[in-house]
Amino acid sequence: MRALALDEGLVSFRDDYPEPAQRPGEVLVRVIRAGICDTDLQLIRGYLRFRGVLGHEFVGVAQDGPFAGRRVVSDINCSCGTCERCRSGLQTHCANRSVLGILDHDGAFADAISVPQANLHLVPDALDTDTAVFAEPVAAAFQIPAQVTVSRDHRVVVLGDGRLGNLCAQVLAGLTSHVLVVGKHAHKLALLQSLGIATSLLPEITPGRMADIVVDCTGSDTGLPTALTLVRPRGTIVLKTTIAGTQTLALAPIVVDEVTVIGSRCGPFPDALAALQDGRVRVLPLISSRFSLWQGIEALEHARTQPVLKVLIDVAPES
Amino acid sequence: MRALALDEGLVSFRDDYPEPAQRPGEVLVRVIRAGICDTDLQLIRGYLRFRGVLGHEFVGVAQDGPFAGRRVVSDINCSCGTCERCRSGLQTHCANRSVLGILDHDGAFADAISVPQANLHLVPDALDTDTAVFAEPVAAAFQIPAQVTVSRDHRVVVLGDGRLGNLCAQVLAGLTSHVLVVGKHAHKLALLQSLGIATSLLPEITPGRMADIVVDCTGSDTGLPTALTLVRPRGTIVLKTTIAGTQTLALAPIVVDEVTVIGSRCGPFPDALAALQDGRVRVLPLISSRFSLWQGIEALEHARTQPVLKVLIDVAPES
Repeated sequence: MRALALDEGLVSFRDDYPEPAQRPGEVLVRVIRAGICDTDLQLIRGYLRFRGVLGHEFVGVAQDGPFAGRRVVSDINCSCGTCERCRSGLQTHCANRSVLGILDHDGAFADAISVPQANLHLVPDALDTDTAVFAEPVAAAFQIPAQVTVSRDHRVVVLGDGRLGNLCAQVLAGLTSHVLVVGKHAHKLALLQSLGIATSLLPEITPGRMADIVVDCTGSDTGLPTALTLVRPRGTIVLKTTIAGTQTLALAPIVVDEVTVIGSRCGPFPDALAALQDGRVRVLPLISSRFSLWQGIEALEHARTQPVLKVLIDVAPES
Repeated sequence: MRALALDEGLVSFRDDYPEPAQRPGEVLVRVIRAGICDTDLQLIRGYLRFRGVLGHEFVGVAQDGPFAGRRVVSDINCSCGTCERCRSGLQTHCANRSVLGILDHDGAFADAISVPQANLHLVPDALDTDTAVFAEPVAAAFQIPAQVTVSRDHRVVVLGDGRLGNLCAQVLAGLTSHVLVVGKHAHKLALLQSLGIATSLLPEITPGRMADIVVDCTGSDTGLPTALTLVRPRGTIVLKTTIAGTQTLALAPIVVDEVTVIGSRCGPFPDALAALQDGRVRVLPLISSRFSLWQGIEALEHARTQPVLKVLIDVAPES
């Protein structure tokens, strides 16, 4: 089959990649469409030393199992179900997990992917495929209210106007009317303004120590220090993006101001699919460009170098 | 009056220090006994550039106000009561606060201190003065359960076998039977063992990623990285000690494992006084040595250089 495979930091387009080997409990899914995520670009730079087919945001058609013939999206964490963490409800933190397109499991930039049936979610018929391909990052945004109570009167600042910042802001704007997105790109902020979300350019904010919650979606080591200048005492900083390597910062303000810093990763797909279906989260304006699978290397290069929001990969036509 | 005053990094014993000027709402308190805290030693090294009388752990006798003639202990944060933070319940984070012996307010290593009446707590008659002088650090330990839910089956690791680590461990041991203190000093750990609390020397622990809660009382920049090797995914790390300056660490594990890091500072005096009175927290074995006020410089030097737990300063006899 065709696939975009990463090996030793090099991505190659291959048309002779072996069809996925199905592990027990897995279902074969023919991929229709996929999205490029920052994590894909980090993996290419060496993060986690991943080898294999890239891609973890996708819509496909299940080939067997109870959803055979239907469009599906998929949780990316494949857990063992038997370790102590799985048994205590921490399946996404399974000690033996593989992660689609990220860790020990081939991903979705390919004609087909093998996925545990337990990970699959049906795409509602009314939901178009372009929208549904955002289910994974929107689920990640919904992990914030799954971890932190967000009330109607909470003042929330989202740092970062990229893909994830945009989706987090939209999810949070459904919970409080006080969301401010701080970014560096006027055209990305304009997209949020068109949805009625307040924005500010980074150089124009004044550190006010007024925010109840600050969400760091910058993917930059300046994110947490900036968040600490904005969060109120006993407020919460949500770290949504990983930064490879180490960074240098002062921790004393966290103690003195009794700030909570909480890491946040993958989230609930049912919430994401519901919000995409009823229009609470609007994703089509985020699509900057689309490429065919055989143009995949160009697509990744485009996502890496251009000021885009979401780049899609068309793998196969919808039947 | 007599006082141990800090000025430009130098502590001097003075017998001509002016009697405290009482601000509105303040009560004059004659100090009986005081305790030396790590923060005092940090202030001498330049933390917060404090100038004035050191000392914030003390028992004294109120000279006026409703508690006149009675022994009192005192919250150390003096808040304005009118700013937005005070009005929203964040009095200990008042934007205009002074802090006894730490920030813009003379402290208790002196014959007398002036304290807002609102900060005072009566010492129960049955509570001896040596025990009551620990009310402030024990209150700080009780801030942990005020911020984080600690259940009977939670596995808690306390990093650090010093004064604060000891008190935090005792408070937490009242809430869960799974407390492990990790330290570097066999004789300090032995004190905890005598209270029935499990201990381990730092080199002997195996990173297990099993702890629900890790409390960092190390006062060292190795504390948080060590805590990250012990806390389970979605577990909580409580930062109890401040470290001046910056430190270098990797934040990605916080995100990937969805760890919560929470800063924790001053806590509730009523909980502390109750626990000291009913023996849930035992502090007398922590007293390593005692000095008179005129020996204060020696007392501070002793606390800085010797492997002691608590050094007390006798200011005046109990009447």
